[in-house]
Amino acid sequence: MSFEAKLEELGHTLEPVELDIGRFMHSVRTGSLVYTSGQVAWGFGVEKGKVGDDITVEQGYEAARLATLNCLRAVKSLVGSLDQVVRVVRVTGFVNVAPGFTDTPAVIHGASDLILEVFGDAGRHARTAVGVTLPSNYPAEVELIVEVK
Amino acid sequence: MSFEAKLEELGHTLEPVELDIGRFMHSVRTGSLVYTSGQVAWGFGVEKGKVGDDITVEQGYEAARLATLNCLRAVKSLVGSLDQVVRVVRVTGFVNVAPGFTDTPAVIHGASDLILEVFGDAGRHARTAVGVTLPSNYPAEVELIVEVK
Amino acid sequence: MSFEAKLEELGHTLEPVELDIGRFMHSVRTGSLVYTSGQVAWGFGVEKGKVGDDITVEQGYEAARLATLNCLRAVKSLVGSLDQVVRVVRVTGFVNVAPGFTDTPAVIHGASDLILEVFGDAGRHARTAVGVTLPSNYPAEVELIVEVK
Repeated sequence: MSFEAKLEELGHTLEPVELDIGRFMHSVRTGSLVYTSGQVAWGFGVEKGKVGDDITVEQGYEAARLATLNCLRAVKSLVGSLDQVVRVVRVTGFVNVAPGFTDTPAVIHGASDLILEVFGDAGRHARTAVGVTLPSNYPAEVELIVEVK
Repeated sequence: MSFEAKLEELGHTLEPVELDIGRFMHSVRTGSLVYTSGQVAWGFGVEKGKVGDDITVEQGYEAARLATLNCLRAVKSLVGSLDQVVRVVRVTGFVNVAPGFTDTPAVIHGASDLILEVFGDAGRHARTAVGVTLPSNYPAEVELIVEVK
Repeated sequence: MSFEAKLEELGHTLEPVELDIGRFMHSVRTGSLVYTSGQVAWGFGVEKGKVGDDITVEQGYEAARLATLNCLRAVKSLVGSLDQVVRVVRVTGFVNVAPGFTDTPAVIHGASDLILEVFGDAGRHARTAVGVTLPSNYPAEVELIVEVK
């Protein structure tokens, strides 16, 4: 099954996004690599706040999954189709943490799970998941490096 | 207009920097990509502190712009001239945040604006802007990935 | 002296690690670059906590060094031998900081020192060292980009 078909089976449709967002781009290609900007779950109406305080791990997981959907949208808008993806190389996940919250991997699993569901073996990525402060108080932010045809 | 001429028009001169700073390098090349180290606004006498507390957004913006100038200096010292740049691929911006400050993009706009002023369309980059704790309490730190000839 | 011999001379033996750790990989290759996941000092029994509070700079330094050993293990398990390394391109170091602690470079020197001891000139890397919140409260986390044959 194609990656596009798999994503559709999961119930997701990726509308094209205008790549130029003023001062920077949602994604950029150099050679065979596409770098996405750090994406939050914009456009999905997720609750904002700090994971471990206002936001539960489950809500953070969902926010990371939706942020990753925005990453895939940025990739598709640049290269035309997710079926151009050779492999997802790297996921960097940032979690908006309350003091004392250290289970950042459980949140970024939301990114990894979506990627594995869509890309299977081609989705096996290197990953980092750290706790920081995020723009507009979003619970999670995800950036990808993807190898494309 | 060349990128070097543009930078000069903006009033900036980039003196060569010794790339080896002991334990690491200001910048490293692999293939057609140059990676800079995370640069702060060293050498410019900026005020130190947390953005949202001791430091205003405007001061943070300026610190990010000067940090980016140090990134460009590190690129130029490695490849000889900014006119070797094909495109700026990626900007990672780190902001030294006080608790509760979440407008990290407004600070890292200082990096993006300088890059767009110097490189125009070749400066359209992917970007991440998160809040962390920075070395020596600098307000902002910037690292670049640049594609070169 | 080969990099493998040098590492052995330093008293370290790298047992192969299973690269697939469920949702992500310890390391991934694309073209001539290997990206490691962010590695902590797992398997070494280091003390957990925040540098500048429970953990001293010296303990953080040691944790960063051991995390880097886990990075090298992830590289070796992927490409077969550290003697496949052309150069270490980039080190990103994350320090688990207590409020007010800003000497993150002193901690990440633990990563840089090991790399320079093993790889010499081929270890001269670009670097970033910032303070964040880390998974499971480990004192330091390190990720590498390495160019390989």
